[in-house]
Amino acid sequence: MGFALDQRLADSSYLIARIDGIQVRLADDSRYVWLVLVPECEGARELHDLADDLRDQMMALATQLGGWMKPTFTADKINIAAIGNLVPQLHLHVVARRRDDAAWPAPIWGHGEPVELADVKRDRLVTAIATFLETGETG
Amino acid sequence: MGFALDQRLADSSYLIARIDGIQVRLADDSRYVWLVLVPECEGARELHDLADDLRDQMMALATQLGGWMKPTFTADKINIAAIGNLVPQLHLHVVARRRDDAAWPAPIWGHGEPVELADVKRDRLVTAIATFLETGETG
Repeated sequence: MGFALDQRLADSSYLIARIDGIQVRLADDSRYVWLVLVPECEGARELHDLADDLRDQMMALATQLGGWMKPTFTADKINIAAIGNLVPQLHLHVVARRRDDAAWPAPIWGHGEPVELADVKRDRLVTAIATFLETGETG
Repeated sequence: MGFALDQRLADSSYLIARIDGIQVRLADDSRYVWLVLVPECEGARELHDLADDLRDQMMALATQLGGWMKPTFTADKINIAAIGNLVPQLHLHVVARRRDDAAWPAPIWGHGEPVELADVKRDRLVTAIATFLETGETG
């Protein structure tokens, strides 16, 4: 028995990188730049199910990504959230929000239907985010 | 110039305790058991505006509260989120969600209108949470 990614997360996002046991994924929704962090920790559903070190590591990664996403994608606000009412496997959203986005100022979860990313846009985002994660700089 | 709590947060929540420079507040909405953590850090709007230590401290506090709230309030899920699209001053929501609550499975933010807490219920919640924060045990 090991960690297995929830099928709904697998179907709705692309793996960008694994950082110290945490998957960094791009949500397949062109309305936002929306990352999903998933610690590869079997059975974890809540932040309090994680060891303190892993929680701190995941929050540091989310914060680092948010701090980079805000200027890179000219966002007005970064939303960071562990919700999981529909998909209980623990996952942390990091979303670059803009005043002109589809849901502003409402939360994005449950707002309308996702719009699949075109291949070119997806590849561009994956490359930019992977490059940031590897080098700490924009690609 | 020092920290000043945003007026909308002040008007919509009750101070329960201050823990190492972080306000623990109870949202004035009887539909949920809903806490709001506010680091007393002037100008902070995003998690990446906080020093790493303070961020870790706030997340540890949120996690500790969530781990206690889930069984105490027979919640099905804990939602922990920094959104702030309407109130930019950095604040972190910690919400005990139940399958029979007013918004489930949608996020609570922007869902319907708040229902003010009756004094008795408010006092009971404030006492229970303050007792947990002081002693690590239920009151």
